[in-house]
Amino acid sequence: MKSLYVIKIGGNIIDDTAQLESFLKDFSELEGYKILIHGGGKIATKLSRDLGIESELIEGRRVTDAESLKVVVMVYAGLINKNIVAGLQSKKCNAIGLTGADGNIILANKRPLRKVLSFGEDLGEAIDYGFVGDLDDNSVDSEAIHKLLVAGFVPVFSAITHDGNGQLLNTNADTIASVIAVSMSSHYATSLVYCFEKNGVLRDVDDETTVIQSIDPELYKELKKEGVIHSGMIPKLDNAFEAINKGLNEVFVGKASTLHELKQKTFGTRLKSEK
Amino acid sequence: MKSLYVIKIGGNIIDDTAQLESFLKDFSELEGYKILIHGGGKIATKLSRDLGIESELIEGRRVTDAESLKVVVMVYAGLINKNIVAGLQSKKCNAIGLTGADGNIILANKRPLRKVLSFGEDLGEAIDYGFVGDLDDNSVDSEAIHKLLVAGFVPVFSAITHDGNGQLLNTNADTIASVIAVSMSSHYATSLVYCFEKNGVLRDVDDETTVIQSIDPELYKELKKEGVIHSGMIPKLDNAFEAINKGLNEVFVGKASTLHELKQKTFGTRLKSEK
Repeated sequence: MKSLYVIKIGGNIIDDTAQLESFLKDFSELEGYKILIHGGGKIATKLSRDLGIESELIEGRRVTDAESLKVVVMVYAGLINKNIVAGLQSKKCNAIGLTGADGNIILANKRPLRKVLSFGEDLGEAIDYGFVGDLDDNSVDSEAIHKLLVAGFVPVFSAITHDGNGQLLNTNADTIASVIAVSMSSHYATSLVYCFEKNGVLRDVDDETTVIQSIDPELYKELKKEGVIHSGMIPKLDNAFEAINKGLNEVFVGKASTLHELKQKTFGTRLKSEK
Repeated sequence: MKSLYVIKIGGNIIDDTAQLESFLKDFSELEGYKILIHGGGKIATKLSRDLGIESELIEGRRVTDAESLKVVVMVYAGLINKNIVAGLQSKKCNAIGLTGADGNIILANKRPLRKVLSFGEDLGEAIDYGFVGDLDDNSVDSEAIHKLLVAGFVPVFSAITHDGNGQLLNTNADTIASVIAVSMSSHYATSLVYCFEKNGVLRDVDDETTVIQSIDPELYKELKKEGVIHSGMIPKLDNAFEAINKGLNEVFVGKASTLHELKQKTFGTRLKSEK
Protein backbone atom coordinates (compact mmCIF):
# COMPACT_ATOMS: atom_id res chain seq x y z
CA MET A 1 0.00 0.00 0.00
CA LYS A 2 1.46 3.36 -1.04
CA SER A 3 1.62 6.13 1.51
CA LEU A 4 -0.27 9.42 1.33
CA TYR A 5 -0.02 12.64 3.34
CA VAL A 6 -3.15 14.75 3.81
CA ILE A 7 -1.96 18.09 5.18
CA LYS A 8 -4.12 20.89 6.51
CA ILE A 9 -2.92 24.47 7.01
CA GLY A 10 -4.85 27.25 8.67
CA GLY A 11 -5.19 30.99 8.54
CA ASN A 12 -2.08 31.71 10.60
CA ILE A 13 0.14 30.46 7.75
CA ILE A 14 -1.97 31.81 4.89
CA ASP A 15 -1.95 35.34 6.32
CA ASP A 16 1.86 35.43 6.58
CA THR A 17 3.56 35.62 3.16
CA ALA A 18 7.00 34.55 4.38
CA GLN A 19 5.64 31.63 6.43
CA LEU A 20 3.45 30.51 3.54
CA GLU A 21 6.35 30.65 1.09
CA SER A 22 8.54 28.58 3.42
CA PHE A 23 5.72 26.08 4.02
CA LEU A 24 5.07 25.66 0.29
CA LYS A 25 8.77 24.93 -0.23
CA ASP A 26 8.74 22.22 2.46
CA PHE A 27 5.46 20.83 1.14
CA SER A 28 6.78 20.66 -2.42
CA GLU A 29 9.85 18.75 -1.21
CA LEU A 30 7.79 16.11 0.58
CA GLU A 31 8.13 12.89 -1.40
CA GLY A 32 5.26 10.66 -2.47
CA TYR A 33 1.53 11.24 -2.77
CA LYS A 34 0.16 14.26 -0.96
CA ILE A 35 -2.92 16.46 -0.68
CA LEU A 36 -3.14 19.98 0.76
CA ILE A 37 -6.22 21.48 2.41
CA HIS A 38 -6.27 25.14 3.34
CA GLY A 39 -8.55 27.32 5.42
CA GLY A 40 -9.32 30.95 4.81
CA GLY A 41 -7.49 33.29 7.11
CA LYS A 42 -8.30 36.91 7.65
CA ILE A 43 -8.50 37.91 3.98
CA ALA A 44 -12.19 36.98 3.71
CA THR A 45 -13.02 38.97 6.84
CA LYS A 46 -11.14 41.98 5.49
CA LEU A 47 -12.83 41.76 2.08
CA SER A 48 -16.26 41.46 3.73
CA ARG A 49 -15.50 44.56 5.77
CA ASP A 50 -14.30 46.47 2.69
CA LEU A 51 -17.56 45.55 0.95
CA GLY A 52 -19.66 46.47 3.98
CA ILE A 53 -20.83 42.90 4.56
CA GLU A 54 -21.19 42.09 8.25
CA SER A 55 -19.98 38.69 9.44
CA GLU A 56 -22.38 37.23 11.96
CA LEU A 57 -21.09 34.65 14.41
CA ILE A 58 -23.33 32.15 16.23
CA GLU A 59 -21.61 30.07 18.91
CA GLY A 60 -18.25 30.96 17.38
CA ARG A 61 -19.26 29.79 13.92
CA ARG A 62 -19.58 32.21 11.05
CA VAL A 63 -23.07 32.40 9.57
CA THR A 64 -22.76 32.20 5.81
CA ASP A 65 -25.48 34.19 4.10
CA ALA A 66 -25.58 34.58 0.31
CA GLU A 67 -23.26 37.61 0.28
CA SER A 68 -20.77 36.04 2.71
CA LEU A 69 -20.74 32.88 0.60
CA LYS A 70 -19.75 34.91 -2.47
CA VAL A 71 -16.88 36.39 -0.48
CA VAL A 72 -15.55 33.05 0.80
CA VAL A 73 -15.84 31.47 -2.65
CA MET A 74 -13.89 34.37 -4.16
CA VAL A 75 -11.24 34.41 -1.46
CA TYR A 76 -10.83 30.70 -0.62
CA ALA A 77 -11.42 29.08 -4.03
CA GLY A 78 -10.08 32.03 -6.04
CA LEU A 79 -7.45 34.24 -4.47
CA ILE A 80 -5.89 31.93 -1.86
CA ASN A 81 -6.24 28.63 -3.70
CA LYS A 82 -4.85 29.86 -7.02
CA ASN A 83 -1.95 31.73 -5.42
CA ILE A 84 -1.01 28.57 -3.50
CA VAL A 85 -1.22 26.57 -6.73
CA ALA A 86 0.95 29.08 -8.63
CA GLY A 87 3.42 29.09 -5.71
CA LEU A 88 3.66 25.29 -5.71
CA GLN A 89 4.02 25.19 -9.50
CA SER A 90 6.98 27.57 -9.22
CA LYS A 91 8.55 24.91 -6.96
CA LYS A 92 7.90 22.13 -9.52
CA CYS A 93 5.05 20.68 -7.48
CA ASN A 94 2.24 19.86 -9.92
CA ALA A 95 -0.61 21.31 -7.86
CA ILE A 96 -4.21 21.37 -9.03
CA GLY A 97 -6.57 23.62 -7.07
CA LEU A 98 -10.02 22.27 -6.27
CA THR A 99 -13.23 22.79 -4.39
CA GLY A 100 -15.52 19.94 -3.48
CA ALA A 101 -17.66 20.83 -6.52
CA ASP A 102 -14.78 20.13 -8.92
CA GLY A 103 -15.04 16.55 -10.13
CA ASN A 104 -17.95 16.21 -7.65
CA ILE A 105 -15.27 15.20 -5.15
CA ILE A 106 -16.91 16.43 -1.92
CA LEU A 107 -20.68 16.33 -1.69
CA ALA A 108 -21.97 18.10 1.42
CA ASN A 109 -25.33 18.49 3.10
CA LYS A 110 -26.53 22.01 3.76
CA ARG A 111 -26.78 22.29 7.53
CA PRO A 112 -30.44 22.14 8.57
CA LEU A 113 -32.02 24.79 10.74
CA ARG A 114 -31.32 24.15 14.40
CA LYS A 115 -34.03 24.62 16.99
CA VAL A 116 -33.30 27.06 19.78
CA LEU A 117 -33.86 25.35 23.10
CA SER A 118 -33.91 27.25 26.38
CA PHE A 119 -33.54 24.89 29.35
CA GLY A 120 -34.83 22.12 27.09
CA GLU A 121 -37.84 24.12 25.97
CA ASP A 122 -38.44 24.71 22.26
CA LEU A 123 -38.77 28.47 21.83
CA GLY A 124 -40.13 28.11 18.31
CA GLU A 125 -37.06 29.87 16.92
CA ALA A 126 -34.39 28.34 14.70
CA ILE A 127 -30.76 29.11 13.97
CA ASP A 128 -29.99 29.26 10.26
CA TYR A 129 -26.26 28.83 9.64
CA GLY A 130 -26.85 29.66 5.99
CA PHE A 131 -24.76 28.13 3.21
CA VAL A 132 -22.74 25.81 5.40
CA GLY A 133 -22.07 22.24 4.30
CA ASP A 134 -21.69 19.29 6.67
CA LEU A 135 -19.91 16.09 5.70
CA ASP A 136 -20.36 12.43 6.52
CA ASP A 137 -18.33 9.27 5.85
CA ASN A 138 -19.68 9.03 2.29
CA SER A 139 -19.09 12.64 1.26
CA VAL A 140 -15.75 12.14 -0.51
CA ASP A 141 -15.25 10.41 -3.87
CA SER A 142 -11.89 8.82 -3.10
CA GLU A 143 -11.80 7.23 -6.57
CA ALA A 144 -11.75 10.68 -8.22
CA ILE A 145 -8.91 11.85 -5.95
CA HIS A 146 -7.05 8.60 -6.66
CA LYS A 147 -7.32 9.26 -10.43
CA LEU A 148 -5.82 12.73 -9.99
CA LEU A 149 -2.98 11.41 -7.82
CA VAL A 150 -2.00 8.66 -10.27
CA ALA A 151 -2.20 11.19 -13.14
CA GLY A 152 0.58 13.08 -11.32
CA PHE A 153 -1.43 15.94 -9.83
CA VAL A 154 -1.19 17.21 -6.25
CA PRO A 155 -4.72 18.20 -5.18
CA VAL A 156 -5.04 21.46 -3.22
CA PHE A 157 -8.50 21.88 -1.68
CA SER A 158 -10.07 25.06 -0.42
CA ALA A 159 -12.84 24.70 2.16
CA ILE A 160 -15.69 25.05 -0.35
CA THR A 161 -18.02 22.15 -1.16
CA HIS A 162 -21.37 21.78 -2.95
CA ASP A 163 -24.72 20.08 -2.47
CA GLY A 164 -24.97 18.47 -5.93
CA ASN A 165 -27.87 20.74 -6.85
CA GLY A 166 -25.78 23.69 -7.97
CA GLN A 167 -25.28 25.26 -4.55
CA LEU A 168 -21.76 25.94 -3.28
CA LEU A 169 -21.30 25.58 0.48
CA ASN A 170 -18.78 26.70 3.09
CA THR A 171 -17.30 23.76 5.03
CA ASN A 172 -14.88 23.54 7.94
CA ALA A 173 -11.37 22.87 6.59
CA ASP A 174 -10.37 20.58 9.52
CA THR A 175 -13.40 18.42 8.77
CA ILE A 176 -12.60 18.29 5.05
CA ALA A 177 -9.05 17.16 5.83
CA SER A 178 -10.24 14.44 8.19
CA VAL A 179 -13.00 13.12 5.90
CA ILE A 180 -10.66 13.09 2.87
CA ALA A 181 -7.94 11.29 4.86
CA VAL A 182 -10.34 8.64 6.17
CA SER A 183 -11.84 8.03 2.73
CA MET A 184 -8.38 7.70 1.14
CA SER A 185 -7.22 5.19 3.76
CA SER A 186 -8.78 2.31 1.81
CA HIS A 187 -6.39 3.06 -1.10
CA TYR A 188 -3.33 4.39 0.74
CA ALA A 189 -1.50 4.15 4.07
CA THR A 190 -2.70 7.62 5.01
CA SER A 191 -1.21 10.12 7.45
CA LEU A 192 -3.29 13.17 8.37
CA VAL A 193 -1.26 16.24 9.35
CA TYR A 194 -2.75 19.26 11.11
CA CYS A 195 -0.51 22.32 11.05
CA PHE A 196 -1.34 24.81 13.77
CA GLU A 197 0.36 27.50 15.82
CA LYS A 198 1.97 25.22 18.44
CA ASN A 199 4.86 22.75 18.13
CA GLY A 200 2.50 19.91 19.02
CA VAL A 201 0.49 18.71 21.99
CA LEU A 202 2.33 20.27 24.95
CA ARG A 203 2.69 18.94 28.50
CA ASP A 204 2.93 22.56 29.58
CA VAL A 205 0.81 24.77 27.36
CA ASP A 206 3.15 27.72 27.98
CA ASP A 207 6.33 25.83 27.13
CA GLU A 208 6.87 24.98 23.46
CA THR A 209 9.70 22.57 24.36
CA THR A 210 7.34 20.17 26.17
CA VAL A 211 5.94 18.49 23.04
CA ILE A 212 4.58 15.01 23.71
CA GLN A 213 6.10 12.98 20.88
CA SER A 214 3.53 10.26 20.59
CA ILE A 215 0.09 9.59 22.05
CA ASP A 216 -1.91 6.37 21.83
CA PRO A 217 -5.49 6.04 23.12
CA GLU A 218 -4.34 4.73 26.51
CA LEU A 219 -1.93 7.62 27.09
CA TYR A 220 -4.62 10.02 25.82
CA LYS A 221 -7.00 8.80 28.54
CA GLU A 222 -4.31 9.28 31.20
CA LEU A 223 -3.37 12.76 29.97
CA LYS A 224 -6.99 13.85 30.04
CA LYS A 225 -7.40 12.38 33.54
CA GLU A 226 -4.30 14.23 34.74
CA GLY A 227 -5.65 17.44 33.20
CA VAL A 228 -2.49 17.80 31.06
CA ILE A 229 -4.46 18.35 27.85
CA HIS A 230 -6.24 21.62 27.99
CA SER A 231 -9.90 21.81 27.02
CA GLY A 232 -9.38 23.58 23.67
CA MET A 233 -7.35 20.64 22.35
CA ILE A 234 -9.80 17.92 23.40
CA PRO A 235 -12.30 18.17 20.47
CA LYS A 236 -9.38 18.25 17.99
CA LEU A 237 -7.78 15.14 19.52
CA ASP A 238 -11.11 13.34 19.96
CA ASN A 239 -11.72 13.84 16.22
CA ALA A 240 -8.19 12.68 15.41
CA PHE A 241 -8.59 9.41 17.36
CA GLU A 242 -12.01 8.90 15.79
CA ALA A 243 -10.37 9.21 12.35
CA ILE A 244 -7.68 6.73 13.37
CA ASN A 245 -10.38 4.28 14.44
CA LYS A 246 -11.87 4.61 10.97
CA GLY A 247 -8.69 3.40 9.28
CA LEU A 248 -6.11 6.20 9.27
CA ASN A 249 -2.51 5.25 9.94
CA GLU A 250 -1.71 8.19 12.17
CA VAL A 251 -2.44 11.85 12.79
CA PHE A 252 0.26 14.47 13.33
CA VAL A 253 -0.34 17.81 15.04
CA GLY A 254 2.45 20.38 14.85
CA LYS A 255 3.89 23.61 13.55
CA ALA A 256 3.95 24.24 9.79
CA SER A 257 7.52 25.55 9.93
CA THR A 258 8.78 22.11 11.02
CA LEU A 259 7.02 20.18 8.24
CA HIS A 260 10.36 18.84 6.93
CA GLU A 261 10.51 16.69 10.10
CA LEU A 262 7.63 14.56 8.79
CA LYS A 263 10.10 12.36 6.90
CA GLN A 264 11.64 11.19 10.17
CA LYS A 265 8.20 11.09 11.82
CA THR A 266 9.55 13.53 14.41
CA PHE A 267 7.10 16.27 13.39
CA GLY A 268 5.03 17.59 16.31
CA THR A 269 2.91 15.05 18.15
CA ARG A 270 2.07 11.73 16.55
CA LEU A 271 -1.29 10.22 17.42
CA LYS A 272 -1.62 6.53 16.68
CA SER A 273 -3.71 3.51 17.54
CA GLU A 274 -2.57 0.92 20.09
CA LYS A 275 -1.74 -1.58 17.37
CA MET B 1 -9.42 10.19 -33.81
CA LYS B 2 -12.01 11.09 -31.20
CA SER B 3 -13.77 14.41 -31.46
CA LEU B 4 -13.49 17.28 -28.98
CA TYR B 5 -15.44 20.52 -28.58
CA VAL B 6 -13.66 23.56 -27.14
CA ILE B 7 -16.38 26.07 -26.32
CA LYS B 8 -15.90 29.68 -25.25
CA ILE B 9 -18.60 31.80 -23.62
CA GLY B 10 -18.36 35.49 -22.86
CA GLY B 11 -19.68 38.01 -20.40
CA ASN B 12 -23.08 38.41 -22.04
CA ILE B 13 -24.03 34.87 -20.99
CA ILE B 14 -22.29 34.90 -17.62
CA ASP B 15 -24.07 38.08 -16.55
CA ASP B 16 -27.52 36.65 -17.28
CA THR B 17 -28.55 33.92 -14.81
CA ALA B 18 -31.34 32.48 -16.98
CA GLN B 19 -29.20 32.43 -20.14
CA LEU B 20 -26.29 30.84 -18.26
CA GLU B 21 -28.53 28.17 -16.75
CA SER B 22 -29.93 27.31 -20.16
CA PHE B 23 -26.47 27.26 -21.74
CA LEU B 24 -25.10 24.96 -19.03
CA LYS B 25 -27.98 22.56 -19.66
CA ASP B 26 -27.22 22.45 -23.40
CA PHE B 27 -23.48 22.15 -22.73
CA SER B 28 -24.01 19.27 -20.29
CA GLU B 29 -26.10 17.42 -22.91
CA LEU B 30 -23.40 17.70 -25.58
CA GLU B 31 -21.99 14.21 -26.11
CA GLY B 32 -18.31 13.31 -26.19
CA TYR B 33 -15.21 15.16 -25.01
CA LYS B 34 -15.61 18.86 -24.30
CA ILE B 35 -13.87 21.81 -22.67
CA LEU B 36 -15.44 25.09 -21.56
CA ILE B 37 -13.62 28.44 -21.40
CA HIS B 38 -15.33 31.44 -19.85
CA GLY B 39 -14.60 35.13 -19.73
CA GLY B 40 -15.41 37.47 -16.90
CA GLY B 41 -18.41 39.65 -17.52
CA LYS B 42 -19.36 42.70 -15.56
CA ILE B 43 -19.00 41.17 -12.09
CA ALA B 44 -15.28 41.99 -11.87
CA THR B 45 -15.91 45.60 -12.89
CA LYS B 46 -18.67 45.90 -10.30
CA LEU B 47 -16.52 44.38 -7.55
CA SER B 48 -13.63 46.69 -8.45
CA ARG B 49 -15.96 49.67 -8.22
CA ASP B 50 -17.35 48.47 -4.86
CA LEU B 51 -13.78 48.22 -3.57
CA GLY B 52 -12.82 51.61 -4.99
CA ILE B 53 -10.32 50.14 -7.47
CA GLU B 54 -10.26 52.05 -10.74
CA SER B 55 -10.04 50.05 -13.96
CA GLU B 56 -7.69 51.69 -16.40
CA LEU B 57 -8.11 50.95 -20.09
CA ILE B 58 -5.33 51.42 -22.66
CA GLU B 59 -6.38 50.96 -26.29
CA GLY B 60 -9.51 49.15 -25.11
CA ARG B 61 -7.57 46.68 -23.01
CA ARG B 62 -7.84 46.61 -19.27
CA VAL B 63 -4.60 47.33 -17.44
CA THR B 64 -4.20 44.73 -14.72
CA ASP B 65 -2.36 46.18 -11.73
CA ALA B 66 -1.83 44.13 -8.55
CA GLU B 67 -5.18 45.09 -7.03
CA SER B 68 -7.09 44.47 -10.28
CA LEU B 69 -5.40 41.08 -10.61
CA LYS B 70 -6.68 40.09 -7.16
CA VAL B 71 -10.19 41.05 -8.24
CA VAL B 72 -10.12 39.08 -11.51
CA VAL B 73 -8.62 36.03 -9.79
CA MET B 74 -11.36 36.17 -7.14
CA VAL B 75 -14.16 36.70 -9.64
CA TYR B 76 -13.04 34.62 -12.64
CA ALA B 77 -11.27 31.70 -10.92
CA GLY B 78 -13.42 31.81 -7.77
CA LEU B 79 -16.97 33.09 -8.04
CA ILE B 80 -17.76 32.51 -11.73
CA ASN B 81 -15.71 29.35 -12.29
CA LYS B 82 -16.94 27.52 -9.20
CA ASN B 83 -20.57 28.46 -9.75
CA ILE B 84 -20.36 27.18 -13.33
CA VAL B 85 -18.78 23.95 -12.04
CA ALA B 86 -21.48 23.49 -9.39
CA GLY B 87 -24.14 24.22 -12.02
CA LEU B 88 -22.71 21.63 -14.41
CA GLN B 89 -22.39 19.06 -11.62
CA SER B 90 -26.08 19.50 -10.83
CA LYS B 91 -26.68 18.47 -14.47
CA LYS B 92 -24.50 15.36 -14.11
CA CYS B 93 -21.65 16.90 -16.13
CA ASN B 94 -18.42 16.07 -14.30
CA ALA B 95 -16.85 19.55 -14.53
CA ILE B 96 -13.48 20.42 -13.01
CA GLY B 97 -12.70 24.14 -12.74
CA LEU B 98 -9.19 25.24 -13.63
CA THR B 99 -6.87 28.15 -14.24
CA GLY B 100 -3.75 27.82 -16.33
CA ALA B 101 -1.76 27.45 -13.09
CA ASP B 102 -3.61 24.26 -12.15
CA GLY B 103 -1.62 21.29 -13.39
CA ASN B 104 0.69 23.86 -15.04
CA ILE B 105 -1.66 23.57 -18.01
CA ILE B 106 -1.27 27.09 -19.46
CA LEU B 107 2.08 28.81 -19.10
CA ALA B 108 1.96 32.45 -20.19
CA ASN B 109 4.51 35.21 -20.70
CA LYS B 110 3.93 38.43 -18.83
CA ARG B 111 3.41 41.06 -21.51
CA PRO B 112 6.54 43.20 -21.80
CA LEU B 113 6.46 46.97 -21.58
CA ARG B 114 5.50 48.50 -24.89
CA LYS B 115 7.27 51.63 -26.14
CA VAL B 116 5.09 54.62 -26.87
CA LEU B 117 5.75 55.80 -30.41
CA SER B 118 4.43 59.09 -31.70
CA PHE B 119 4.62 59.27 -35.51
CA GLY B 120 7.34 56.63 -35.28
CA GLU B 121 9.32 58.56 -32.70
CA ASP B 122 10.21 56.89 -29.41
CA LEU B 123 8.94 59.20 -26.69
CA GLY B 124 10.88 57.36 -24.00
CA GLU B 125 7.65 56.29 -22.33
CA ALA B 126 6.34 52.76 -22.04
CA ILE B 127 2.91 51.24 -21.58
CA ASP B 128 2.77 48.70 -18.77
CA TYR B 129 -0.26 46.43 -19.19
CA GLY B 130 0.48 44.96 -15.78
CA PHE B 131 -0.20 41.35 -14.91
CA VAL B 132 -1.35 40.30 -18.36
CA GLY B 133 -0.21 36.98 -19.83
CA ASP B 134 0.35 36.36 -23.52
CA LEU B 135 0.32 32.89 -25.05
CA ASP B 136 2.17 31.20 -27.87
CA ASP B 137 1.85 27.84 -29.64
CA ASN B 138 3.72 26.05 -26.83
CA SER B 139 1.80 27.53 -23.90
CA VAL B 140 -0.65 24.66 -23.40
CA ASP B 141 0.20 21.23 -21.96
CA SER B 142 -2.21 19.19 -24.09
CA GLU B 143 -1.05 15.97 -22.42
CA ALA B 144 -2.31 17.19 -19.03
CA ILE B 145 -5.71 18.12 -20.50
CA HIS B 146 -5.83 14.75 -22.27
CA LYS B 147 -5.26 12.98 -18.92
CA LEU B 148 -8.17 14.86 -17.35
CA LEU B 149 -10.46 14.09 -20.29
CA VAL B 150 -9.76 10.36 -20.26
CA ALA B 151 -10.20 10.33 -16.47
CA GLY B 152 -13.77 11.48 -17.14
CA PHE B 153 -13.47 15.16 -16.20
CA VAL B 154 -14.82 18.11 -18.20
CA PRO B 155 -12.29 20.94 -17.84
CA VAL B 156 -13.74 24.43 -17.28
CA PHE B 157 -11.12 27.16 -17.65
CA SER B 158 -11.30 30.71 -16.39
CA ALA B 159 -9.12 33.28 -18.16
CA ILE B 160 -6.35 33.18 -15.55
CA THR B 161 -2.89 31.79 -16.34
CA HIS B 162 0.53 31.90 -14.65
CA ASP B 163 4.16 32.53 -15.52
CA GLY B 164 5.64 29.44 -13.81
CA ASN B 165 7.38 31.62 -11.23
CA GLY B 166 4.43 31.95 -8.88
CA GLN B 167 2.75 34.89 -10.63
CA LEU B 168 -0.87 34.60 -11.75
CA LEU B 169 -1.73 36.48 -14.94
CA ASN B 170 -4.87 37.75 -16.67
CA THR B 171 -5.22 36.37 -20.21
CA ASN B 172 -7.75 36.98 -22.98
CA ALA B 173 -10.34 34.17 -22.93
CA ASP B 174 -10.71 34.05 -26.75
CA THR B 175 -6.97 33.50 -27.02
CA ILE B 176 -7.01 30.76 -24.38
CA ALA B 177 -9.80 28.96 -26.24
CA SER B 178 -7.95 29.16 -29.53
CA VAL B 179 -4.56 28.07 -28.15
CA ILE B 180 -6.13 25.15 -26.23
CA ALA B 181 -8.07 24.03 -29.30
CA VAL B 182 -5.01 24.14 -31.56
CA SER B 183 -2.87 22.27 -29.05
CA MET B 184 -5.53 19.56 -28.60
CA SER B 185 -5.89 19.03 -32.35
CA SER B 186 -2.94 16.62 -32.39
CA HIS B 187 -4.92 14.27 -30.07
CA TYR B 188 -8.51 14.96 -31.15
CA ALA B 189 -10.56 16.06 -34.15
CA THR B 190 -11.16 19.44 -32.54
CA SER B 191 -13.97 21.94 -33.10
CA LEU B 192 -13.60 25.40 -31.60
CA VAL B 193 -16.88 27.14 -30.77
CA TYR B 194 -17.16 30.85 -30.02
CA CYS B 195 -20.46 31.85 -28.45
CA PHE B 196 -21.23 35.52 -28.87
CA GLU B 197 -24.26 37.80 -29.03
CA LYS B 198 -25.12 37.24 -32.72
CA ASN B 199 -26.56 34.17 -34.46
CA GLY B 200 -23.39 33.88 -36.53
CA VAL B 201 -21.57 35.80 -39.24
CA LEU B 202 -24.35 37.84 -40.83
CA ARG B 203 -24.69 39.03 -44.45
CA ASP B 204 -26.64 41.97 -43.06
CA VAL B 205 -25.34 42.97 -39.64
CA ASP B 206 -28.80 44.25 -38.67
CA ASP B 207 -30.67 41.10 -39.70
CA GLU B 208 -30.16 38.04 -37.50
CA THR B 209 -31.79 35.80 -40.13
CA THR B 210 -28.95 36.38 -42.63
CA VAL B 211 -26.49 33.95 -41.06
CA ILE B 212 -23.87 32.67 -43.50
CA GLN B 213 -23.90 28.93 -42.83
CA SER B 214 -20.38 28.09 -43.88
CA ILE B 215 -17.27 30.04 -44.88
CA ASP B 216 -14.06 28.66 -46.36
CA PRO B 217 -10.96 30.79 -46.98
CA GLU B 218 -11.98 31.55 -50.58
CA LEU B 219 -15.46 32.75 -49.62
CA TYR B 220 -13.92 34.68 -46.74
CA LYS B 221 -11.72 36.61 -49.19
CA GLU B 222 -14.75 37.42 -51.36
CA LEU B 223 -16.90 38.51 -48.42
CA LYS B 224 -14.15 40.84 -47.23
CA LYS B 225 -13.73 42.23 -50.71
CA GLU B 226 -17.49 42.84 -51.01
CA GLY B 227 -17.41 44.56 -47.62
CA VAL B 228 -20.01 42.12 -46.27
CA ILE B 229 -18.01 41.34 -43.16
CA HIS B 230 -17.86 44.37 -40.92
CA SER B 231 -14.56 45.44 -39.48
CA GLY B 232 -15.22 44.31 -35.91
CA MET B 233 -15.52 40.69 -37.03
CA ILE B 234 -12.34 40.62 -39.13
CA PRO B 235 -9.76 40.06 -36.34
CA LYS B 236 -11.99 37.31 -34.85
CA LEU B 237 -12.30 35.53 -38.20
CA ASP B 238 -8.63 36.07 -39.12
CA ASN B 239 -7.71 34.34 -35.85
CA ALA B 240 -10.18 31.55 -36.51
CA PHE B 241 -8.73 30.80 -39.96
CA GLU B 242 -5.22 30.96 -38.50
CA ALA B 243 -6.25 28.33 -35.93
CA ILE B 244 -7.73 26.17 -38.70
CA ASN B 245 -4.44 26.41 -40.60
CA LYS B 246 -2.69 25.12 -37.48
CA GLY B 247 -4.72 21.89 -37.44
CA LEU B 248 -8.21 22.60 -36.13
CA ASN B 249 -11.09 20.84 -37.82
CA GLU B 250 -13.44 23.79 -37.83
CA VAL B 251 -14.49 26.88 -35.94
CA PHE B 252 -18.10 27.77 -35.16
CA VAL B 253 -19.32 31.27 -34.33
CA GLY B 254 -22.85 31.62 -33.04
CA LYS B 255 -25.32 32.31 -30.27
CA ALA B 256 -25.04 30.37 -27.01
CA SER B 257 -28.80 29.78 -26.87
CA THR B 258 -28.60 27.66 -30.04
CA LEU B 259 -25.75 25.42 -28.84
CA HIS B 260 -27.91 22.29 -29.18
CA GLU B 261 -27.64 22.78 -32.97
CA LEU B 262 -23.95 21.83 -32.83
CA LYS B 263 -24.88 18.15 -33.13
CA GLN B 264 -26.29 18.73 -36.62
CA LYS B 265 -23.47 21.18 -37.39
CA THR B 266 -26.14 23.80 -38.09
CA PHE B 267 -24.97 26.02 -35.21
CA GLY B 268 -24.16 29.58 -36.30
CA THR B 269 -21.49 29.98 -38.94
CA ARG B 270 -19.05 27.17 -39.62
CA LEU B 271 -15.56 28.21 -40.70
CA LYS B 272 -13.54 25.46 -42.34
CA SER B 273 -10.53 24.92 -44.53
CA GLU B 274 -10.84 24.29 -48.27
CA LYS B 275 -10.04 20.60 -47.83
